[in-house]
Amino acid sequence: MSDRIVAISTPPGEGAVGIVRLSGSGVVETVSGFFHPYNKDLPLTLRNNFSLNLGWLLDLEGEKIDEVLVSVMRAPHSYTGEDVVEINCHGGSLAIRRCLKRCLDTGVRLAEPGEFTKRAFLNDRLELSQAEAVIDIIRAKTDRGLKLAVQQLGGRQGQLIADLEEQLLHLNAMLEASLDFPDEVGDLDDAEARRILESCINKIKQLLKAGQRAEVYRDGINMVICGKPNVGKSSLLNALAQKERAIVTDIPGTTRDVIEEYINIRGIPVKIVDTAGIRETEDLVELIGVQKSKEVIENADLVLFMVDFSAGISDEDMDIFAGIPAEKMIVLVNKEDIEDKKISPAELREKFQNMTVIKSSVKMETGLDELEQAVYDLVLGTETMHDGLEIMINLRQKLALQNSLAHMQAALEALGTMPLDCLGVDIWGALERLGELSGKSLKEDIIDRIFHDFCIGK
Amino acid sequence: MSDRIVAISTPPGEGAVGIVRLSGSGVVETVSGFFHPYNKDLPLTLRNNFSLNLGWLLDLEGEKIDEVLVSVMRAPHSYTGEDVVEINCHGGSLAIRRCLKRCLDTGVRLAEPGEFTKRAFLNDRLELSQAEAVIDIIRAKTDRGLKLAVQQLGGRQGQLIADLEEQLLHLNAMLEASLDFPDEVGDLDDAEARRILESCINKIKQLLKAGQRAEVYRDGINMVICGKPNVGKSSLLNALAQKERAIVTDIPGTTRDVIEEYINIRGIPVKIVDTAGIRETEDLVELIGVQKSKEVIENADLVLFMVDFSAGISDEDMDIFAGIPAEKMIVLVNKEDIEDKKISPAELREKFQNMTVIKSSVKMETGLDELEQAVYDLVLGTETMHDGLEIMINLRQKLALQNSLAHMQAALEALGTMPLDCLGVDIWGALERLGELSGKSLKEDIIDRIFHDFCIGK
Repeated sequence: MSDRIVAISTPPGEGAVGIVRLSGSGVVETVSGFFHPYNKDLPLTLRNNFSLNLGWLLDLEGEKIDEVLVSVMRAPHSYTGEDVVEINCHGGSLAIRRCLKRCLDTGVRLAEPGEFTKRAFLNDRLELSQAEAVIDIIRAKTDRGLKLAVQQLGGRQGQLIADLEEQLLHLNAMLEASLDFPDEVGDLDDAEARRILESCINKIKQLLKAGQRAEVYRDGINMVICGKPNVGKSSLLNALAQKERAIVTDIPGTTRDVIEEYINIRGIPVKIVDTAGIRETEDLVELIGVQKSKEVIENADLVLFMVDFSAGISDEDMDIFAGIPAEKMIVLVNKEDIEDKKISPAELREKFQNMTVIKSSVKMETGLDELEQAVYDLVLGTETMHDGLEIMINLRQKLALQNSLAHMQAALEALGTMPLDCLGVDIWGALERLGELSGKSLKEDIIDRIFHDFCIGK
Repeated sequence: MSDRIVAISTPPGEGAVGIVRLSGSGVVETVSGFFHPYNKDLPLTLRNNFSLNLGWLLDLEGEKIDEVLVSVMRAPHSYTGEDVVEINCHGGSLAIRRCLKRCLDTGVRLAEPGEFTKRAFLNDRLELSQAEAVIDIIRAKTDRGLKLAVQQLGGRQGQLIADLEEQLLHLNAMLEASLDFPDEVGDLDDAEARRILESCINKIKQLLKAGQRAEVYRDGINMVICGKPNVGKSSLLNALAQKERAIVTDIPGTTRDVIEEYINIRGIPVKIVDTAGIRETEDLVELIGVQKSKEVIENADLVLFMVDFSAGISDEDMDIFAGIPAEKMIVLVNKEDIEDKKISPAELREKFQNMTVIKSSVKMETGLDELEQAVYDLVLGTETMHDGLEIMINLRQKLALQNSLAHMQAALEALGTMPLDCLGVDIWGALERLGELSGKSLKEDIIDRIFHDFCIGK
């Protein structure tokens, strides 16, 4: 038996539809108490599972609050695994809040952030990694980030972890057999044990590397464009924004929102730092050497340093250049379309040794593909990890994987040198850390913290 | 056959749930083309009417966009009267926009504002006054305003108009019988005709008056509080706001929005004009005489003029007083709790002859009920129209009613003095104007204009 919770599940504001969601034992009966269906012969409590029901919501005095569509989804076949009712109101904020108030009046409790998804996890409707994917879907910034989160929701990570767990459990069974029945089973097959451990270690390392890539897709990167005035910084910014504008944002009638603060470069959400300043004054160059600009460059994941063929490379340019760490810099030489170039290929080679140098004409839109490839390579590495493994890993999961990895490596070292008991401790340690990803071995306070990050109503 | 339309129906922003709504012939088949239900044996097209269906939405490449709940409501038993499908996504703005994009990719058209409700009207699912009530529900500012809009959605106005139409049609039938079969039917029964017309005229006048009251509940009023500094203006404002805070707004987790800009006085949304200024500087008095403050007072529906017992009534007070039109003023004498009153009852009587004067102590919370009653009486009239008629009438409807009324009055004058034909023209005129309320005689461009006021997705 679970207590009943309720929350508004749609974003605040004026819309066509607003949803109030309830979950817990008996919420169908609860809502039935103040919902008058158009078909009076069949009360809500007798309606089909997964049915939509039209009627009026009544207040405590029996007066109509709103005409609504009520969905009934009974345990265990619902999002939370409990009885769930969703009340679909006309989208005014007053109507929907009165509807919420009516539910609270019956003694239903206001849900905490993420409490619906938390219940889904506690009732085994979602694995923990799936539950965590829900928030990544809501906050996805590019199609690529969304796709990774959706794969996660489909159970991708859970599968991989389950495979690892199975291998470790098999190894543990071998170990225990050798310990308990040495005469029948004989010694532990060291070679087989080593093979299993090495395979697990490789898999985790792959996971961690893939997770690092996915982190980039989920959280995006900060990029600074710098260079002297008139080198074409704002034009470049506009060209990049234009070119890769999220496919879905140019649909008339959809609202501009936070997504558009990011430029989408090959699926990577790229946030241009201090854009406003660059756009308005083009004088980041004046700031170079000043503390503030140093900080901006320090905090950036990537710095695009621009010079142009019409102006040549001056001492001023080289001063700016010297202030940028080489490992996160891409040099872009703009205006390659002009006739009278003031920079020779030899000069480029000499001044920007070992740097990625892209020649481009922002105006003629040449070199932009190469620039995007260079950004992608710098951020995600050219090695490209062609194992095709794509998976989301958040900070919590990363730590658990790293800890599990440490146990496996200790087990590998112990193999053949230490008593089997010690080996067993590390194998169990590795398993327990993996259990934090699947949710099998998670403490309540950690669970609470995970779900508190969600929005109310989810 | 209707073309297929689609729109996002939930407000923009991050929420737990986002809804994409489709309407038109064949939208169930449309969505079935890219929706993979968990129960693969039963495609969406074979699912029950008013059913909820869980599964995955796929993009053009067959990759998963999001896990969704899809509702199927087939013609004619849906909101629009056409086939309707609602796709309930995880609430991220990218996921929901990709879902919208997927629908558009199949050739479904983006819906215009209010187009779903417009179709509901065109398909006889809603009368025009009901359709117009939908927008009033979404924008309701107080419980009282919401209640009136909900009554309207229930068909309240439509019923009253239908009654009027019936009486006029009966009168017209009498008239035509006398014209066409004078020998059999005889002359028009003037007394009966007069009785019908007078009854209709009274009804319309009642409607107009009730509509005026409802307008106050729907649109609210502007109120200015003025008086010298330290007379207690901000305290009064706080006390009123505290006392009548909309019951539903103090639920934790519900977001503050436009509703809270209004103070709720007996169900009337009261907007305090230029509050910020009054709160911060308390120097509206300095502005008196200045053009700006004159305008504020001119545009206000009600001016609360405050003096206080501790300060007495100075020339400065009387200057302010002189600048306020008597018919929209209420005088509030604050600090009635102090011992040493500087204003005598006689002085109050003499200086504020024929005015509503309320004695109060904002600090001790006395006199506030009387003040609210005075506001209510001044705005809605003390006559109180105890016919209990409560009805919403918007500007368009008001004009139609006034025009219909003019025709009826003309018919009444014509009765007995003009040929019966003339009478007939006015009766038809009255009927046609009523038809603009029920939607029976509305031109397409007017219909378009009505629905264009709606939000997209409704």
